[in-house]
Amino acid sequence: MAPIRTQWTRLIRFVANETARVHIGQPVDPALDVGLAAHQGKVIKAYEITGSVLDPTAQVTKKVLTVKSLLTPLSGEQVKVVRCLGLNYSDHAAEANLPKPAFPILFYKPITALIGPLAPIVIPKVAQPPKEHLPDYEVELVIVIGKAAKNVSEADALDYVSFRKHQMAVSQWNFSKGFDNTNPFGPCLVSSSLIGDPQQIPLKCTVNGKVLQDGNTAEQIFNVRQTVSFLSQGTTLQPGSIILTGTPKGVGFVRKPPVYLQGGDKINVWLGSGIGSLFNDVQEEKDTPLSKL
Amino acid sequence: MAPIRTQWTRLIRFVANETARVHIGQPVDPALDVGLAAHQGKVIKAYEITGSVLDPTAQVTKKVLTVKSLLTPLSGEQVKVVRCLGLNYSDHAAEANLPKPAFPILFYKPITALIGPLAPIVIPKVAQPPKEHLPDYEVELVIVIGKAAKNVSEADALDYVSFRKHQMAVSQWNFSKGFDNTNPFGPCLVSSSLIGDPQQIPLKCTVNGKVLQDGNTAEQIFNVRQTVSFLSQGTTLQPGSIILTGTPKGVGFVRKPPVYLQGGDKINVWLGSGIGSLFNDVQEEKDTPLSKL
Repeated sequence: MAPIRTQWTRLIRFVANETARVHIGQPVDPALDVGLAAHQGKVIKAYEITGSVLDPTAQVTKKVLTVKSLLTPLSGEQVKVVRCLGLNYSDHAAEANLPKPAFPILFYKPITALIGPLAPIVIPKVAQPPKEHLPDYEVELVIVIGKAAKNVSEADALDYVSFRKHQMAVSQWNFSKGFDNTNPFGPCLVSSSLIGDPQQIPLKCTVNGKVLQDGNTAEQIFNVRQTVSFLSQGTTLQPGSIILTGTPKGVGFVRKPPVYLQGGDKINVWLGSGIGSLFNDVQEEKDTPLSKL
Repeated sequence: MAPIRTQWTRLIRFVANETARVHIGQPVDPALDVGLAAHQGKVIKAYEITGSVLDPTAQVTKKVLTVKSLLTPLSGEQVKVVRCLGLNYSDHAAEANLPKPAFPILFYKPITALIGPLAPIVIPKVAQPPKEHLPDYEVELVIVIGKAAKNVSEADALDYVSFRKHQMAVSQWNFSKGFDNTNPFGPCLVSSSLIGDPQQIPLKCTVNGKVLQDGNTAEQIFNVRQTVSFLSQGTTLQPGSIILTGTPKGVGFVRKPPVYLQGGDKINVWLGSGIGSLFNDVQEEKDTPLSKL
């Protein structure tokens, strides 16, 4: 199968109808919002990509597969570690009445928090009832580290960022953002070659049909270059590891009255630059299943 | 090779002289401080253990191997994620003039921070000069999760803890505790069946021959059962993942004048209950090597 191009520019991971196995591929339609199409039950076709998402020699082939179910763009094993920035948007710092941080505020999530682009978000028993714990919605641009990075300068930072995608997180205000099955991740990795300026990406979060966040990465206090450079000081950023770069204004806890998520809510997040949409229903945990990723 | 017992009680991971490959084993001498013996260049013999450290059917055999180099008891890939408790000793909270926390304070480290029992600790350039950044020493009891745990009660918590071991961390006071090659881990896993009461374990840290920490896990604000139970609420604790349970009083930053680590310092930590010693020299980073684990 001759490659039609050496490098992919948009990557999805999915179970294929033809094989019932997991593949990676590039959507045939370069303009398709893969998450929206999957949510609407439309047929999604993708050129199979040979090799691994982290393999720089991976090639897009002419072999077309159809998507049976859309997965996170990298598996939890590939991601290994999830870094997150707190309070990284000027407009969000302002609405929360907090000063802009002087350096990136780093926290971590375990990979067991990650779920697929259409999977239900689960509010665990320990965060119930929602009315007391105020689980929140957050749309974020995600950086994926493409090759091991350490002590990277800001000028070189984007050389280590092979692709980006987005996610939405339900957070619990006073306790933890790392609960199982709370962090949808996807639908599509977009290469840095295609994405253009990472500081000009619009991002939105809609809850039950109402737009509650409508921001732009231009509002980031620490941009993508600064973030990768800062986090790599003294620290190897492993290939596949991801960085959640913070959320713009409009989150629920600062609203009057506060908005919080509860079972039955329907969340949709969207990012521009070819990244696309996620659709996730909220469930309240009844039993105690282990993370399913 | 007939097993001499079904379950191991003390486990080390090492490269063997006989094979030049990585093995796990149980020290032949049940009273041996493996880290001390390795530091002194003594011959260490171990019964080979078949299977994986995380395999409950792993068996101790009669085959004896000798240790060429001692490794972390689990590889970074097996550990996956490092959880840490902040401010978890009453005596340490008191010396830092801070109130006891109302619930366990959780933070994370990446696995790239972990190094072997005798490996050098590296102070990265970003934390230099040490006199300004005050990199610190900390001895801690480490919990290793033996099987996946979620929403565990305190009464059941120890069923999920197969073994424990200890570590020492060089922390940077105002920035991060997760730098590459700063967290020695080992030398020995001790099964919960052998360890007895986890709240009666003495632990010490010696810097350049001077004992600077001399505590006991009896001073833990949240004990091992409470810690595992709390952290598992809404969250799958994956097999192999580890929990650093905090450090007792005596750390450097509260001393007058402050004590901090710098290149050439020699650190030794020790825990009782069959866990043993680590010996690590401090280096200041000159170039920028990636994590070597």
